[in-house]
Formats: sequence, structure tokens, C-alpha cells
Amino acid sequence: MSDATQQYWDLIKEQKAYEEAIALMHWDLRTKAPKSGMEYRAEAISYLSQQSHRLSTSDKLKELIDELKPIAEDDILIKSLAESEKEYDRNKKIPEAEFKAYIMLQSKAESVWGEAREKGDFSLLQPYLEELVTYKKKFASYWNAEQHAYDVLLDMYEPGVTMETLDEVFPALRKSLTNLLEQIKQSNVKPDTSVLQTHFSKEQQKAFTISVLKKMGYDFEAGRLDDTIHPFEITLNPKDVRITTRYDEEDFRMAVFGTIHEGGHALYEQNIAEALAATPLASGTSMGIHESQSLFWENFVARSEAFWKGHFEEFKTYAPASLKEIDFDTFYQAVNEVKASFIRIEADELTYALHIMIRYELEKALFKDEIAVKDLPEIWNSKMEEYLGIVPDSDAQGVLQDIHWSGGDFGYFPSYALGYMYAAQFHAKMQDSLDTDNLIEKGDFAPIKQWLTDQIHQYGKAKKPLELLQDVTGEGLNADYLVSYLTEKYSKIYQL
Amino acid sequence: MSDATQQYWDLIKEQKAYEEAIALMHWDLRTKAPKSGMEYRAEAISYLSQQSHRLSTSDKLKELIDELKPIAEDDILIKSLAESEKEYDRNKKIPEAEFKAYIMLQSKAESVWGEAREKGDFSLLQPYLEELVTYKKKFASYWNAEQHAYDVLLDMYEPGVTMETLDEVFPALRKSLTNLLEQIKQSNVKPDTSVLQTHFSKEQQKAFTISVLKKMGYDFEAGRLDDTIHPFEITLNPKDVRITTRYDEEDFRMAVFGTIHEGGHALYEQNIAEALAATPLASGTSMGIHESQSLFWENFVARSEAFWKGHFEEFKTYAPASLKEIDFDTFYQAVNEVKASFIRIEADELTYALHIMIRYELEKALFKDEIAVKDLPEIWNSKMEEYLGIVPDSDAQGVLQDIHWSGGDFGYFPSYALGYMYAAQFHAKMQDSLDTDNLIEKGDFAPIKQWLTDQIHQYGKAKKPLELLQDVTGEGLNADYLVSYLTEKYSKIYQL
Repeated sequence: MSDATQQYWDLIKEQKAYEEAIALMHWDLRTKAPKSGMEYRAEAISYLSQQSHRLSTSDKLKELIDELKPIAEDDILIKSLAESEKEYDRNKKIPEAEFKAYIMLQSKAESVWGEAREKGDFSLLQPYLEELVTYKKKFASYWNAEQHAYDVLLDMYEPGVTMETLDEVFPALRKSLTNLLEQIKQSNVKPDTSVLQTHFSKEQQKAFTISVLKKMGYDFEAGRLDDTIHPFEITLNPKDVRITTRYDEEDFRMAVFGTIHEGGHALYEQNIAEALAATPLASGTSMGIHESQSLFWENFVARSEAFWKGHFEEFKTYAPASLKEIDFDTFYQAVNEVKASFIRIEADELTYALHIMIRYELEKALFKDEIAVKDLPEIWNSKMEEYLGIVPDSDAQGVLQDIHWSGGDFGYFPSYALGYMYAAQFHAKMQDSLDTDNLIEKGDFAPIKQWLTDQIHQYGKAKKPLELLQDVTGEGLNADYLVSYLTEKYSKIYQL
Repeated sequence: MSDATQQYWDLIKEQKAYEEAIALMHWDLRTKAPKSGMEYRAEAISYLSQQSHRLSTSDKLKELIDELKPIAEDDILIKSLAESEKEYDRNKKIPEAEFKAYIMLQSKAESVWGEAREKGDFSLLQPYLEELVTYKKKFASYWNAEQHAYDVLLDMYEPGVTMETLDEVFPALRKSLTNLLEQIKQSNVKPDTSVLQTHFSKEQQKAFTISVLKKMGYDFEAGRLDDTIHPFEITLNPKDVRITTRYDEEDFRMAVFGTIHEGGHALYEQNIAEALAATPLASGTSMGIHESQSLFWENFVARSEAFWKGHFEEFKTYAPASLKEIDFDTFYQAVNEVKASFIRIEADELTYALHIMIRYELEKALFKDEIAVKDLPEIWNSKMEEYLGIVPDSDAQGVLQDIHWSGGDFGYFPSYALGYMYAAQFHAKMQDSLDTDNLIEKGDFAPIKQWLTDQIHQYGKAKKPLELLQDVTGEGLNADYLVSYLTEKYSKIYQL
């Protein structure tokens, strides 16, 4: 190995040391850390983040990239350099003073968002959002003046995806989903979810979900499961991939589906090839592909008929008495109820993508200057009515529900819907080589996990999302698979 | 504030960020971290430690110290600069290559120690110990060529304490303790500890210890209690002081006294004055003073007659049936049984200091070249016989029991005995203003905690250990208080 190559890998290792420390500090804050220590902790995180930022924008790194790029022959090195260069450029191109001001604004906006949501008063947040949009437009122009600002932002979360990509699939998907929703509304089948709402102890819920996580192949020697208010997956290092979940003792669905969802994210991170471990390629390739893995396990596995056929008896051994008396159909229908609702994170798998499309359309219009920030609540509500047939009483239940925009995260939402489409495409492709229904029913998840590892996980960031999709499925983004899956599943449940 | 002063405090803050990250990583490794991630974690810790070390030996720091020392007027700044300079000198004076070789040797020796202890074979460890002693002599000469090497090492753990200090108190203390032990052996009172060995669930033990910790004033909003194999206290930041404990469900003494011991350490760290928080003075002033605080709570409070008089009924509400039937005297005698034993960390409060003295005498002789490393097992055993009247069957129960020497920690052991003497002196002094027995019996620990805070905790490292002792008690190190305390307590228990 050349001197420069060694120096480059050493620098990456240093970055990873900071990243691990910062990730652990965040994990600890969200799981365990005593309240009073938060202020000191925030200062420590801030300093370590600065150090990490300094490394990723150092002249040294730039010199190494410039020296190695023309001569690198190894594929991992070439792609790692490209990742490092992308990060370097992204960080370097924003003038430091502007970046600092933006960080201040962001943290202020997030705290105002909390207040605005509590009071249901969008006007409190409006000026901050206006400023954030202005900043993000400016940053996008620094990053890439030749692309439309919103395309530049989309690329941050989903490299290669543009408005054009989305506009090719979203309108048809929306039409299919709203049609299906309409039919479901008119169906005589009315799932009774009240049967699910019964006291189910946290310990028993946990025992069941751990049993499922183990069958999925989540490696508890290289991870752990904890409780938090907001469930998440976090990677400390390639052999330390933690997940958290939240238990509602009156509604087991939160923890059961939530844990399996985070488990899907974790499987991705735990199964990236060892050869990528100490490189910038050692993580999921995009927000959307990551979400495809969590949604695959949550929806395509854990909400499937096959899963419950095979696991209902086991589930009952953990469940309280009243759940043991429910017949299979009542139960299966109840866990798959479709119902227009206001809150995205509580939406069922059919209406979920409609929530995303509303956000996408608003973001796009904002960045195209077709609407102003002040118009958001009104347009939000009218789109809710158009797509879901319901109108929120207050902005707290509407435009103020998500923290993303207050954090400056414009362009992030589409990844949720993309992940869903990817998952359906992967699921369809998987049928070529595996009888997934049969495997899922038997609880024999190993071949499924192996397929996902072989096709997706192992590559980490070494393949871009659309490249990966093409390699796995032989085609590009295609919403038909999701539509077919949902149509088939819900036609059966709702006897359409 | 001058520019240089501000720069100095900024630098300290940076050091603290590293220290917090490293402390959290260690805490996590010992409490929660998944096994498979250890190797990556070790690399991250090693890199961050290097960064922290780089800061504490930076030319920048040295320049700031040199600039500020002659002009500093503020007491906190003056003492902080002195601490920083001491650390700078200590780290700078060892040639880097030697330090690296030493670190390698140390880590190798610790792993060989595990094997040697398992096999009860001292000869495996001997060559490593010989090298470690050679290194430590050399390091001591770098640090301070004018003092005897062992005095230099003692000063690292207990600033100001020398062999002379120890030799003034240890022999008389040893004579008193061995006399007392002899009388106890001949007493007709034979505490029955078998009554304590009964199944006592972890949850109930924990509930009782938490109740005591709360009465002690341990702030759970600025700390937390977890389970580990080896109990410890660790400070992440001034408002995040964590403790751990170990539960033996067949012998509650481990967790009850162990938790209170760690709680004593934690109270010290939690009650250092806010003004010292972001300075190098924000920790306990020495190993010995720290130990005085843990031993104060463990022995002078939690093993006292007053404590059990006041808490036996509460204790019984948590305890299993068989413990509820024991009468007070049987119970109190059993938790205070004195018995010569091989293992230091399992020793009772009377014989404990004898274990320490054996180690001190061996260390001193080694560093004075009066004995060789190879002689350690034999001399160990003969001293055990002389002081405690028992001889270990194997070196695993003898000279190999502690990890300290394999880690190069020579000069550390005396602090344990010093802590004990300090605690007795503080306890005696406290009687001038507080009726401690009465307060302890009532469980009214607040005035005791306040006294300790006013007299000791608040000062952190702003007072050196012997200076603090003088200020609090009006005298220097004096073993008489410990002897009186033990004589009085055990004469009563054993009817001497």
C-alpha cells in the first residue's frame, strides 16, 4: 500500500472514531443519560462534531484525494475517495459564517416548532421556515449551481433521484392509491381494531419481538435493544448496531411492528461486507434503500397473512387472555386496517405514501417559487381533503406535525415513499428464487435475509440506489409493484 | 478575561470533551456494549486517547501556562494552571518511544496476569513484572530525579505522601490491628454469617439500596445505577456521575455495601463546587481522599450499629422470609464478622488494612532493591502468616490476586489504607458538630452529607489531600482515630 493510501485510510479511521463517540453520546442521551448532564454533554458533542468536521474538510484530506484519484485502481478505494470528495465539497462550499448562522437558525426553529405545534399556531414558525428555505436554496446553489435547487437537495438523501424521477411515478401511484382507498371506504368489511386494544405487558411484548428479531437474524452479539420514546436504529461501528423501540401496553402494534421495522434497518447495517468496514462505504447507500429494508420486514413480512398464519399461535403464548380468543381473520384484518388519518407516522401501509406525496408536492412548489411558506397550511389541508378525504382541525394535526422542515430537511420526505416502492420491487423480484410466503409462514427467514444480503446489504454505499435497484431487479423505479402488492393484499382483506 | 485566559479555558473544555467521550465509551463497554463491537471500540478509544494526550502535551498549552502563570491572580486559575502543568510535565518527560513500549508491555502483562492467576503460576508473570518495575523506576527518574522512585510514584496517587509519611503510621496501625485480631480470634463470640446467605432477589436488593442512596443524597437526575461485574463510579461530567453495582442473590452484602461504597464516591464528585466545574480541579483530590468518602459511607455509616438500629425494619420489608426472623444482634454481628481471609476485596473492615500493608511493604522493598520480583510469592505468604495467621494454598489466592501490578500501578495500594485513616479522622471530627449516631439511626443523612460537602467535596482538587486533612481536622495523618474506632466497635461486638 502506498504511503498516501495508508494516510488516507488512517484519516478515515480517525473520522470513524469521532463518529462512534458522537453516535454513542446520542444513543446514551436518548436511552440512559441523566437529565442534569445534558448541557455538558451538548458541549462535548459540539466540540467532537467540530473536530470531525475539521477532519472531513482538512487540506490534508483534499491533498490525499487529489493525489490518489488519478492513480487509484482498487474499486473500494476509488469509491471511497469519491464519497470523501463529495463530503469535502459539500462541507467546503458553504462559507463558514453562513453555515454557523444556519445551524443557529435550525436549532432555534426546532424549538419554535415545538411551541407552534403545541399551540397549533403555524404563524409562529412561518418566519423561521421562510429563512430556512432561503438558506437551503442558497446552499443548493453553492453545491451545484447547474441543477435545480430541489434536485440538489433530493440528491443528498437519494443520490441520482430528481423531480423528474419522482414525477414519473408519483402521480400514477397516487391515483391507484386513492382509487383503492375509495373502494375500501365503500367495502362492507369493517375491521374491528378495538379487539387489539387490550393490556399487553411490556415484558411479554418484548419477548415476542425478540423471538422475531432472532429469527430475522438480528445479531444480538453485535447489537442491543433498548427503550426510547422515539424508536431508532443507530450504528456505532460495523459490529455494534443498536435498535430501540417503544412499548404501548394498551396497543401492542407500536412495539411489534416498530421493533421489526428497526430490525430491518439494523440487518442492513449488520450485513455490509467486511471489506467495506473501515471505509466511507460502510453504511446504507441512501435513505430510501434503508427504508426499503425496514418496510420490507415491517410490511411485506410482519403484516403479511403468511406471517400471522405461521406465528399467531406463538404470538398467543405471549398475549393476554382476550387476544387469545380472537379468531385469525378478525385479528389479521385488524392489524391491516386501512383508514385515512391525519398523522403520517400512524398511517397504515396503504395511505402512508399519500402523506408523503402531499409533502413532496408542497416542497417542490416552495422551491419552484410557486407557493409561499405562508400558504402551506391552506394547501396542506386542501390536499389532505383531495387525497385522503379528511381535513385536520388544527395545524398541529396537519402541517406542523413533522419536525423535518424545522430542521431544514427539505427533500427528505420522498425517500420514505421511494423506500416503499423499492421494497415492493425487491419483494417481487425475490419471488423468482424464493417462495417467500412459505418461508415467512414457517418462520424460516434465513434464506430471505441471505437474499437481501447478497443482493443489497453487502454493497453498503458501493452501489448508488438506482444502480442497486437496476442490478437487483433489472429495471428502474417502477410503482406498479407496489400498486399490485397493495391491490392484491387489500382486495382480499376488504373483499373488493 | 484576557485572550490567553480564554484560550486556556477553551483548551480545558476540549480536553473535557475527549474525557467525557472516553469515559462514556468505557462505561458502555462495562455495562451495555455488544461483545462483537469491542475491537472497533478499542480502536476508537485509542485514537481519542491520543488526541486527548496530544492536547495535554501541546506546545500551545505550554505557552499559555508560561504566559499566564506569572500574571494569574485568581485562585482557581492559579491552581488549574498548576494541575495542567503537572500533567504536561508528567506526559512530556517520558520519551514517546518508551511510553509506547510501556503501554504495549502493560497491556500484554494484564493479559498474562489473567492466565497466570488462572493457573496459579507466578513464574508466567514474573518477567513482565520485572520489566514493569524497571520502566516505572525509569519513569520516576524522568519525573523527579531528586526524589526516591517510590516516593515519586506515591505522589501520583496521593500528592504529598511519601514513604516517610506512611512509615510513621503503618507500623503502629499494624500492631494495633493484629492485636485486635488476636483478641477477636480468642473471643467466645462467633458471628453466624450463614444466616445472611439466603436467596434475596436482585430487584428487592436494588429497591433497598436505592432507598439508601436517595437518603444519602445521591442525585439520580445527575447519575444512574447499573449492573456490572466489577462495581465502579465514573464521572462523565459534573452533572453525570454514574455508579454500578453487582448483585449476588445468595449474599446481599455484596450489593448493599458495594452500592453504598460507590455512592460515597459519587457524592464526592456530585458535590464539587460549580465554580470548579469546567476546570482541571473538578474531581476528587486524590485516590485516598476519594476512598475516604466511599469507606465513610460503607463502614462508618452502613455497617454501624446506629444504621441497622434505624434501618433493620425497613430492610426487612425488602428481605426474604428467613432474614425477617433473625434478631438484631445476630444480624448486626453477622454483617460485621471479622475473619482473616486471603482476598483483599473480600476482607472485613478490620483486616482490610493489613492486606494493604503487605502490598506496601513489598512495593517499597522492590523499589529499594531489597527484594527481587521473583521473591514476591514467598515474602507475600510469610507476611500473610505473620499479619493474618493464614497462608494461601496458591498464588492465585495470594500474590496474583490483584491486577494493579500487572497494570504498572505501583504506589497505588497505600491509598486504600490512607482513605481508611482519613475517614476515621473525618468521622471523629464530625462529632464536634453532629451527633452522627443519632442522625444515622434516624436516616437523616442530609446534615452528614452537608458536612462532607462543606469540609471536603466542594474543594475538588483545589486542596491537596494532606492540606485538606489539616484544614478539616486541625492535624496531619493520625492512625489513632482508626484504631479507636475499630477497638471500640469490635470490643463491643466481640465482648473483648
